[in-house]
Amino acid sequence: MDSEGQLIERVIAGLPSEKRAPRRLAHSRGLRLGIGDDAAVFRPSAHKEWVFSCDAFLEDVHFVAKGSPPGSAGYKSLVRATSDLTAMGATPRFFFLTLAIPPARTGPWLDKFLKGMAAAATQLGMRLAGGDTTRFPKVMVSITVLGEIPRGQVVTRTGGRPGDLLYVSGSLGGAQLGLQLLRHGLTAASRYRRLVRPHFYPSIKPQLGVWLARRRLASAMMDISDGLSTDLARLCAASRVGARLFETRLPCVRVPRALSRLKLDPLQLALHGGEDYQLLFSVPRNNRGQLSRAPGSELLAEIGELTLDKQILLIDAVGRSSRLSPGGWDPFRTRAS
Amino acid sequence: MDSEGQLIERVIAGLPSEKRAPRRLAHSRGLRLGIGDDAAVFRPSAHKEWVFSCDAFLEDVHFVAKGSPPGSAGYKSLVRATSDLTAMGATPRFFFLTLAIPPARTGPWLDKFLKGMAAAATQLGMRLAGGDTTRFPKVMVSITVLGEIPRGQVVTRTGGRPGDLLYVSGSLGGAQLGLQLLRHGLTAASRYRRLVRPHFYPSIKPQLGVWLARRRLASAMMDISDGLSTDLARLCAASRVGARLFETRLPCVRVPRALSRLKLDPLQLALHGGEDYQLLFSVPRNNRGQLSRAPGSELLAEIGELTLDKQILLIDAVGRSSRLSPGGWDPFRTRAS
Repeated sequence: MDSEGQLIERVIAGLPSEKRAPRRLAHSRGLRLGIGDDAAVFRPSAHKEWVFSCDAFLEDVHFVAKGSPPGSAGYKSLVRATSDLTAMGATPRFFFLTLAIPPARTGPWLDKFLKGMAAAATQLGMRLAGGDTTRFPKVMVSITVLGEIPRGQVVTRTGGRPGDLLYVSGSLGGAQLGLQLLRHGLTAASRYRRLVRPHFYPSIKPQLGVWLARRRLASAMMDISDGLSTDLARLCAASRVGARLFETRLPCVRVPRALSRLKLDPLQLALHGGEDYQLLFSVPRNNRGQLSRAPGSELLAEIGELTLDKQILLIDAVGRSSRLSPGGWDPFRTRAS
Repeated sequence: MDSEGQLIERVIAGLPSEKRAPRRLAHSRGLRLGIGDDAAVFRPSAHKEWVFSCDAFLEDVHFVAKGSPPGSAGYKSLVRATSDLTAMGATPRFFFLTLAIPPARTGPWLDKFLKGMAAAATQLGMRLAGGDTTRFPKVMVSITVLGEIPRGQVVTRTGGRPGDLLYVSGSLGGAQLGLQLLRHGLTAASRYRRLVRPHFYPSIKPQLGVWLARRRLASAMMDISDGLSTDLARLCAASRVGARLFETRLPCVRVPRALSRLKLDPLQLALHGGEDYQLLFSVPRNNRGQLSRAPGSELLAEIGELTLDKQILLIDAVGRSSRLSPGGWDPFRTRAS
């Protein structure tokens, strides 16, 4: 377990909570699924469920306010939070924004921040339902999102079974490549500007998650926020399975040859780079044929399968296997940006 | 309008939101009341409504981590957030916790923080439903709370009418007095320790709000978080009325004579001191008689009345009136603690 995981366990152990509500409580109070997945699920009425998630986006932890477009902070903070809803198969609806900013950023910076956030809200079909604002020496964004889904369709991380096929919704490593270009001061060059965009303005696909959930095609699903190696380990732990990943099938970001001096390995970027917000999901083999009709099916990549053996193995081009350890982002282990 | 108010207006103007959902939307999507009151209200089914609110509790803005018991930060952050639910008449149910802390505070500090928060959760009958944790140079707590209320019983800030009587649920100024003792380094003296407690461990009374809402006795209600003078101005603005307050009826905190050298005026503490989290509510005159059966009725104080004239007047012991300006806490105007 990584140190963020340990911290989460302590928070859960220290507070009255329910990982999964007992049946009786679920009926009397509406909570169906509590702590431990991408989001919490409530069943407010007989036919629908509401899915909640919250997410922090903090200056110098998740972004560098001085080096980022303010619009990116607004856009990305809402997309990040909403990604957890799409990973349950829910349709995003509302968000609550807690925003703390230094007085010096209440001017044009705030206008651009809000413009970026409004663009994300419009793309995702979401509306602000409440919030809190205050001043703080650093920018602090905390967002709670609410999504809706018909009763019983939520896709958790726990349903994966040995033999299920593993998919990702699109290219991996692009956000990490953008971050590397930023760190090397290469963002001014117009030919690289396009490559930085996935870091500042990640795009997510609520339609795919909703489509998979409606048809009950995915056995487990989550979003890749901290890197494939880290998030796959979480999905496997929740489903009590292992996995085999095939190196050659990973949809790695393309690194232009002109950047060879940076020694960026596309495979490492794809395995351990975070913030792509692609969906990672498992599909029983019988359902495989239907995926060709999924929204964005041309970008889906079948990257491996779940296994009974609980380790996670990476199979290279000539069939050799090695253990894959979580190497993604952990806010308590590394510095971001 | 104060500068926090201006900021809130800009956030609302800059993002897709609904102050009050149109009737059609309210049915199709469940949002009944959006931005602008203590909390947002959703109607998930025909018979009940859910009330949401979020609140930030930040080191060096809302509390000083070095000078406060860690348990107080946990306790107070949940109570503050929940206070907004009780101010709508809702029964608190669940909370979502976003917690950012420096690595140095992940040890005993976190244990005590969680213990304080668990005590508040138990007292309030709440359970943790989700959250997010990360590291940050300062302690940052952001909480979203969810409460439940039977359909149509929510008490907003907007329903006050001229002639309605104004009440507060208990003593005012105690939290501010505690903060002053803290600032003057007087917390070690055992005879003052009891006086500091309202600052560190404010208590709220969900029962009173629920009781008033069930019986539809209050025309408008909110909690006093930033000070009576500031919050009454908000209630009056939302209800489009003014108010007359009677100095002699204000339940001011008692300041011990031994503290006279600090020159603390109980009236000023009661008018402008924040963080007491008492309920402020208006009651049509016809309902006055029923208040004697309210939970905690012995602490209720009738402090004045709402008026057609939109100014807020303070009437002194000999009947002279003066304008009362908002003098409570504004995070963008003053430094706390």
